[in-house]
Amino acid sequence: MVVLLTADDVPPPTDIDAITAIADVRTATADTLADVLPGADVLFVWDIFSGALADAWHAADSLRWMHVAAAGVDAVLFDELRDSDVLVTNARGVFDEPIAEYVLACVLAHDKLLHQTEEHRRLGQWAHRETLRVSGRRALVVGTGGIGRAIARLLRAVRLDVSGAGRRPRDDDPDFGTVVDSARLTDHLGDVDHLVMVAPLTEATRGMLGAAELAALPDGAHVVNVGRGALVDQSALTAEIASGRLAAHLDVLQTEPLPAGDPLWTLPGAHVSPHMSGDVIGWRDTLSRQFVDRLRVWVDGGVPGPAVDKQRGYVSGP
Amino acid sequence: MVVLLTADDVPPPTDIDAITAIADVRTATADTLADVLPGADVLFVWDIFSGALADAWHAADSLRWMHVAAAGVDAVLFDELRDSDVLVTNARGVFDEPIAEYVLACVLAHDKLLHQTEEHRRLGQWAHRETLRVSGRRALVVGTGGIGRAIARLLRAVRLDVSGAGRRPRDDDPDFGTVVDSARLTDHLGDVDHLVMVAPLTEATRGMLGAAELAALPDGAHVVNVGRGALVDQSALTAEIASGRLAAHLDVLQTEPLPAGDPLWTLPGAHVSPHMSGDVIGWRDTLSRQFVDRLRVWVDGGVPGPAVDKQRGYVSGP
Repeated sequence: MVVLLTADDVPPPTDIDAITAIADVRTATADTLADVLPGADVLFVWDIFSGALADAWHAADSLRWMHVAAAGVDAVLFDELRDSDVLVTNARGVFDEPIAEYVLACVLAHDKLLHQTEEHRRLGQWAHRETLRVSGRRALVVGTGGIGRAIARLLRAVRLDVSGAGRRPRDDDPDFGTVVDSARLTDHLGDVDHLVMVAPLTEATRGMLGAAELAALPDGAHVVNVGRGALVDQSALTAEIASGRLAAHLDVLQTEPLPAGDPLWTLPGAHVSPHMSGDVIGWRDTLSRQFVDRLRVWVDGGVPGPAVDKQRGYVSGP
Repeated sequence: MVVLLTADDVPPPTDIDAITAIADVRTATADTLADVLPGADVLFVWDIFSGALADAWHAADSLRWMHVAAAGVDAVLFDELRDSDVLVTNARGVFDEPIAEYVLACVLAHDKLLHQTEEHRRLGQWAHRETLRVSGRRALVVGTGGIGRAIARLLRAVRLDVSGAGRRPRDDDPDFGTVVDSARLTDHLGDVDHLVMVAPLTEATRGMLGAAELAALPDGAHVVNVGRGALVDQSALTAEIASGRLAAHLDVLQTEPLPAGDPLWTLPGAHVSPHMSGDVIGWRDTLSRQFVDRLRVWVDGGVPGPAVDKQRGYVSGP
């Protein structure tokens, strides 16, 4: 039996009929999850912001697989789940290329001064300025999972000089070439033009881009965060942007929505967006289809997808 | 003897010393050109907006080569020059990659809704929206010279579906694959997502994107003009943008600067910029160096660069 965990303001999966044809499906929201969960072997977390399972864990008497329709699983992991035998899978792959395109858009908008030009336009100012060649600019992508790899490939396709930062330093990565040690980030930031944050949020990565790391970036560097807001010390970054030293495209923030009155709403150089970098038209359909495909494998007795390493907090390995 | 045609508000070429070391150099502005020109065999048009040679043509008693520090030569050609034996060369190559990067920036900004997102940010609105996959979008590049080719290659590198429009239709172009007949543009616009205008301005291309062509574009299409403003019927395009049917990034306009009060300053969907798409940091240095290199060839008795076909109005052939 499959429990679909959703919310009132979230549209149902496109493939709900296909899912129902494969399995007995019950729908729950955060409020009703504990009532619906007993007897379920599969939990499909469709409302990706729901951490409701932690509270309903006592009712998960038969749970064997939880699929999360998101790339990041930080919101849904908790200690009892980590220590259990429940298989956790995520939406691996779905967001790779869409987010890579979004990051490239941010990189180009920055180097070609598009936002500044729009501001001049808004003010009726014809202000010729010189822009940057994008080819040869140096990008460091922090996070070497599927999304980070897609970003690296796309930035390389337009001839940026790309490297990665991850747990395991190496010089022969097929997508990054060089991967530097993400635990020693300050050592590798001095020549970075575009710093792309796409690491999963774990206890090891929380706040990894702090005041010291930001200070190690050169003047004029550009931060793109498409991972999680909590990867970054947001007040330190805000101060760097306010000083005019750094600019940023921030698709994720410490608190979402960004509270009214936050300086990031208005600072020149801060370009906030509402957690949408991977959400291309049809994204929910793709997520729905991915679950159906995996559910079929599950029902046939197979392994429905690569497991999230629940201790690390992400799917590890290639 | 080389005459350097410049203007008071234009910085001198970086390599003026090198030029002076190679040849006798005299500097002229539009006002003094007729006085300085007699005896000169080379004219270096450094003020690219100057059409002064037409008025000073009677004084061009020894002129054999004119080099223009611009890609488009529409502003400097006139009938007597066309019918003369004077070799005309342009800044071929210098702007290819910079403009290609700029066009890609515009394409991505459009598909990823960056301008709309900035407008929401300015108003303090957290407004999640779905964006487009860029991969697979259809781009038609009108103009198959060096800049158009660089645009095609870069758009293909991020997996757009690219074709070209030019004088000679063909299916085996190395950069475009298919090139359709630019004289029958309306036949080829029905499925175009991004229409990139980069043709040289000639009598054959003036107004080539008129009301009928614009009407042939599908709803939601995006026009990028990095060629010349007069390629486009600007009032017809303005009407299409005002209706919400089309959007555009216009780096060139019928009148530059765009006059105050023009609706293109304020229409949502119209993104004007001040003729800067190719002007990356160091662009004037590159133009200066290109002339020095060519002047050396000229002084040694060689052909200093590919000739502009003065009847057609651009360098033709590969």
